[in-house]
Amino acid sequence: MPAEANKRLCDIGEDELIARLIAGLRMDDSVLCGPGDDCAVLTGASPEWLDLLKTDVVVEHVHFASDADPEQVGWKALARPLSDIAAMGGLPTAAVVTIVTPDHLPLSQAVGWYRGMQKVAQTYGFSVVGGESSSSPADHAVISVSMTGRVEPDRCIYRSGAKQGDAILVTGRLGGSLPSGRHLNFQPRLTESRWLGEFFKINAMMDLSDGLAKDLPRMMKLSKMGYHINVENLPCHHGVDAQAAMGDGEDYELLFTVTRELVPELLMAWQQQFADQLDLTVIGEVVAATKSDGQLSGGWDHFDNKKSSSTSS
Amino acid sequence: MPAEANKRLCDIGEDELIARLIAGLRMDDSVLCGPGDDCAVLTGASPEWLDLLKTDVVVEHVHFASDADPEQVGWKALARPLSDIAAMGGLPTAAVVTIVTPDHLPLSQAVGWYRGMQKVAQTYGFSVVGGESSSSPADHAVISVSMTGRVEPDRCIYRSGAKQGDAILVTGRLGGSLPSGRHLNFQPRLTESRWLGEFFKINAMMDLSDGLAKDLPRMMKLSKMGYHINVENLPCHHGVDAQAAMGDGEDYELLFTVTRELVPELLMAWQQQFADQLDLTVIGEVVAATKSDGQLSGGWDHFDNKKSSSTSS
Repeated sequence: MPAEANKRLCDIGEDELIARLIAGLRMDDSVLCGPGDDCAVLTGASPEWLDLLKTDVVVEHVHFASDADPEQVGWKALARPLSDIAAMGGLPTAAVVTIVTPDHLPLSQAVGWYRGMQKVAQTYGFSVVGGESSSSPADHAVISVSMTGRVEPDRCIYRSGAKQGDAILVTGRLGGSLPSGRHLNFQPRLTESRWLGEFFKINAMMDLSDGLAKDLPRMMKLSKMGYHINVENLPCHHGVDAQAAMGDGEDYELLFTVTRELVPELLMAWQQQFADQLDLTVIGEVVAATKSDGQLSGGWDHFDNKKSSSTSS
Repeated sequence: MPAEANKRLCDIGEDELIARLIAGLRMDDSVLCGPGDDCAVLTGASPEWLDLLKTDVVVEHVHFASDADPEQVGWKALARPLSDIAAMGGLPTAAVVTIVTPDHLPLSQAVGWYRGMQKVAQTYGFSVVGGESSSSPADHAVISVSMTGRVEPDRCIYRSGAKQGDAILVTGRLGGSLPSGRHLNFQPRLTESRWLGEFFKINAMMDLSDGLAKDLPRMMKLSKMGYHINVENLPCHHGVDAQAAMGDGEDYELLFTVTRELVPELLMAWQQQFADQLDLTVIGEVVAATKSDGQLSGGWDHFDNKKSSSTSS
């Protein structure tokens, strides 16, 4: 590891980079939740709603291939932050878009991105209200999207609220998002999240973007809890094994916890509400907080997952 | 000009590109002002405030040089959208930041950007509440910032409100922003804008980012008005001529119009409030709308400005 003054971004992980960047930021009293959750949460102009704010980005060659359908790229660019609004239990209100592109980009491609974004906005009931464009000295494109939303104060669901003994659940199925193309046309779980928040006390929630093996430990760390996952219970997409379901990422499913006693009623109500459309699976439970060495307790039964063991157990 | 299907972004101007991109967007009823003004304006959760939303971006090699002071780059990245919040007459509430950078970027540089952004937030009373980072396949950095704000419904100032006979005024001095380095450490005119909105009926306002010669015609086009500028009256920075004052850009001063009758009182009150700190200059007037050919009437006295004549007169 190079000396502090000579460090480059590649010398530290993403989580440490973010920790370094935000270390000097100061939150004023209006900020109920700053960096670290799916969205920032602020007191709004009305006591009946909290304001949500999220920014996200997709980069050509990193998040989408150059030959991907532009409309699907636009869908993904906007559906990703919408998934974060859903993960707070909120409703979307508006989005703004910045594109940074080489001058030689075909006009039809940029127009296609916007068509895909308008589709998301129309499907989920909000508007893309503005944007910005800049030419880029590079030959790849960047689409940066920011979203606002709102949520009732008693229905805002943070990552940090998991309690010992909670059941851990996940919507849908996991894994294989990139090879199947699902990462370009997934449905953010907005309807499901609003339904969950209306009828059940959800203790903690996030959306799965980097994969269960990375994301679950983040949620549990914020909750100061450990976890125990039954890997054999993981709902895998067809042709995907448990390792891929944990590590592939880009699932954009909801990961959440509820008091164990609620589970039978929740599963029955879910079945009635979303029958055949979307699975809901109990994958594990929240366990006692930290081990003696200060590390989180994390267990992945019948499974030797190096990623998870290096970050959390 | 290539056939429509083969067009690239470089084949059309920035204004036409934006027009093409937003053509398919649909605004729902909550959107009072979509793309085209300094910020988007939406009805908020409280009838006492409108919501403002803005996104902006700075790109290395385009908006800042690689050897620029990182703290000043961060200042600029956040002060630019703040200037847009000010241009609506509003107050900032929060910002989110996305950085897209090559992996070999020195950590100290990214940390410096954030330090500069925190300075803006602290100076102007809001918080940077989150962000996102992505590695870039290119060797230059992109900093994309989005801001939220709010404004009282009767104090929201659009570009479109200029009226025939209005005086056109500009704060501060213009020109030479890039060579002087002012583009990296300018003060957004938030205090001045709030003061203007509190004590005077401002009919139209915007901030000057692309230069008077480009920006004024945009405001007048949205107001469906023409303009007449006394070029000899332009408040130029020391060592800058009128042509540079009109064309250089990156001034981030306020350009606004008020009923002519208000001008003496406004200038006197300004003098008392901001004496010696900041100029306020009447630079021209709003004139009858369009010429017979549908083009805007635009006049730049004693001045042969090709940019303005090609876009507006």
